[in-house]
Amino acid sequence: MKRFLNITLLISCFCFEAGWSQETQIVEDFKPSTINQADKQFPQVNSQRRVRASIAAPNANKVQLDLGGVKYDMRKDENGVWTGESNPQDEGFHYYQLNIDGASVPDPGSLYFYGAGRSGSGIEIPARDQEFFALKEVPHGLVSENIYFSKLTNSFRHCFIYTPPGYTDNEKTRYPVLYLQHGSFEDESGWSAQGRANLILDNLIASKQATPMIIVMDNGYAYKPQNKESAAKKERPESIFEEVLITEIIPMIDSKFRTLANREHRAIAGLSMGANQTMRIMMNHVDTFSYYGGFSGTANYPSVDPIDASTFLEGKYKDGKAVNKKIKLFWLGLGTKEPSPFPKSIGAFKTMLDQQGIKYVYYESPETAHEWLTWRRCLYQFASKLFK
Amino acid sequence: MKRFLNITLLISCFCFEAGWSQETQIVEDFKPSTINQADKQFPQVNSQRRVRASIAAPNANKVQLDLGGVKYDMRKDENGVWTGESNPQDEGFHYYQLNIDGASVPDPGSLYFYGAGRSGSGIEIPARDQEFFALKEVPHGLVSENIYFSKLTNSFRHCFIYTPPGYTDNEKTRYPVLYLQHGSFEDESGWSAQGRANLILDNLIASKQATPMIIVMDNGYAYKPQNKESAAKKERPESIFEEVLITEIIPMIDSKFRTLANREHRAIAGLSMGANQTMRIMMNHVDTFSYYGGFSGTANYPSVDPIDASTFLEGKYKDGKAVNKKIKLFWLGLGTKEPSPFPKSIGAFKTMLDQQGIKYVYYESPETAHEWLTWRRCLYQFASKLFK
Repeated sequence: MKRFLNITLLISCFCFEAGWSQETQIVEDFKPSTINQADKQFPQVNSQRRVRASIAAPNANKVQLDLGGVKYDMRKDENGVWTGESNPQDEGFHYYQLNIDGASVPDPGSLYFYGAGRSGSGIEIPARDQEFFALKEVPHGLVSENIYFSKLTNSFRHCFIYTPPGYTDNEKTRYPVLYLQHGSFEDESGWSAQGRANLILDNLIASKQATPMIIVMDNGYAYKPQNKESAAKKERPESIFEEVLITEIIPMIDSKFRTLANREHRAIAGLSMGANQTMRIMMNHVDTFSYYGGFSGTANYPSVDPIDASTFLEGKYKDGKAVNKKIKLFWLGLGTKEPSPFPKSIGAFKTMLDQQGIKYVYYESPETAHEWLTWRRCLYQFASKLFK
Repeated sequence: MKRFLNITLLISCFCFEAGWSQETQIVEDFKPSTINQADKQFPQVNSQRRVRASIAAPNANKVQLDLGGVKYDMRKDENGVWTGESNPQDEGFHYYQLNIDGASVPDPGSLYFYGAGRSGSGIEIPARDQEFFALKEVPHGLVSENIYFSKLTNSFRHCFIYTPPGYTDNEKTRYPVLYLQHGSFEDESGWSAQGRANLILDNLIASKQATPMIIVMDNGYAYKPQNKESAAKKERPESIFEEVLITEIIPMIDSKFRTLANREHRAIAGLSMGANQTMRIMMNHVDTFSYYGGFSGTANYPSVDPIDASTFLEGKYKDGKAVNKKIKLFWLGLGTKEPSPFPKSIGAFKTMLDQQGIKYVYYESPETAHEWLTWRRCLYQFASKLFK
């Protein structure tokens, strides 16, 4: 018993030592996050990819930094300012928030991004390959907000449209179009704000790695208007995004912008929920699109079971040769650190493609999870292969 | 002494009664603010124009609604949710925040707007005349974000450009341009986000009350790059917005967009600091602009003293006849509830114009202070008189 106690003591000491030494190991080279509000000093990021948050809350009992599913206790100084650090984070963009005595609130220092079902704080951990999405002295396209009334949903909707550099100069040139969708609990603002789609394309076009194209970023949530009865019953409204895209959005874009309005010059892609949605839309409309990109998602999600091509998506993948003939590029991407069920679910889908002899490109984003750096890299890879 | 005490008691009782009766007078017809995040129930506004905020903060000691310079104590319920109401507010848009145990943070329920030097919460009190800035089923223009590198400031800058409905349809038509500036501690996003400039113009154009025009909304803060010495001394950098506008922004807009690139088709206007800035720019560049709008500001701000036209702005108003000949419209606006020094400062400026025999239009926005409803109304009035 005594021996056991000693071992316990030893372990306790070791843990304490480890905790203490981990804390002292914080490298003091923190710099303000690149996506802070103008002139705001916090949050900050250091070379270990730790985040340091700070906020004045003189009368608070407890303040925490809530990042990546972990709540880190912050410390109060004599002036009532709370400061705390996270463990090292993956490179790229992450949503986060502060927790003040139980209230989850945006950090007043960061810019705000719509994701995780709310407009809230974001932090950028510098990535080794950040040059591809950096703001550089190259010609820049425009990102335009377009408001339209959708008869199918009986509501006003918004989309953002990227037009490439040169679009406004030569008013005869027509351009191919990529329809690019966000993930669940995100909206039409995500791809240009946290996704940096415009900067990625500006850079690709400047280095002649991509064909100049228009990108349309709309909202993947679109529902049939509910009657009073079904609304009262709180029934889940019927999603009609596919119909809105095909019969409202695409005709509107083709009439408002100088597009090349045919399947050879139309691509569709999405991330996570958007990958799932756009894969179904692609397979139902191979006469509308000829390029597909699925970033961290496939239409069998969340299943990891083997796929029977004769029944999956009404047998759309049954005739592999026909699929190869119709689809110019079938592109899939995934981060190497993505959680379950993404690797196995996408794995099952790839196995089905292999079995059907369907050609595809598969890309893995190193050291990233189900987050925006994965999708920025996917867009960078995918866009460079379009319309060529 | 006893009598005195009784009076004091009586007064105390009366005050308590008054406080209590004021509280019971809150009308329970609160509805979610029209500028909340999707599906967020709070903040709310009632028919008395009171704001009700609500936030879960189970471990907080004190939570306040901080609106219009007043901090209203909120009450905690058994679930740890704090709720509180403001006094009645003016109609229109207001910035606000929550205060949790001394921490000033955005309300997680509202959309965020850049103003008061931060991106933070906004609330919309329905205005009696809100139809003129409402989102309606009329043709909508685009609001495009344009990124450019400014050599003069050695920095990347952004501007938003409103192009009217029809701009993308007929690619031969050229349009007049209004350069429209924000106020202090605001930025280029203000006029389309909280100002609703795009919706105001969409509605004016749909009812044929305004000539279709392009509106350029840039950032009024532009500084000469500092050398290390002056930066180390924390010297105030030199503002060069006038130079940036005249030599970088206007040529860029005239090359990227189908403008009518002459003074007859160029207007300039601004609110508060922007009114002051643009008035100086207008008077220095009467060969560039022919219409001027000053919303809640003039170039003599903050002075309320009589103006000597022979010296003010280097005598630019000395020759009233020449000013009348050059400037097609000189337009000034003010809210009836604006605080000191605006009424007297703008009053002194008007007196000078009268003395010089300079023609101008003067508009007063009823029951609004130095806030966005004043400026929305100013834009509505001003834009309807341009380019005719």
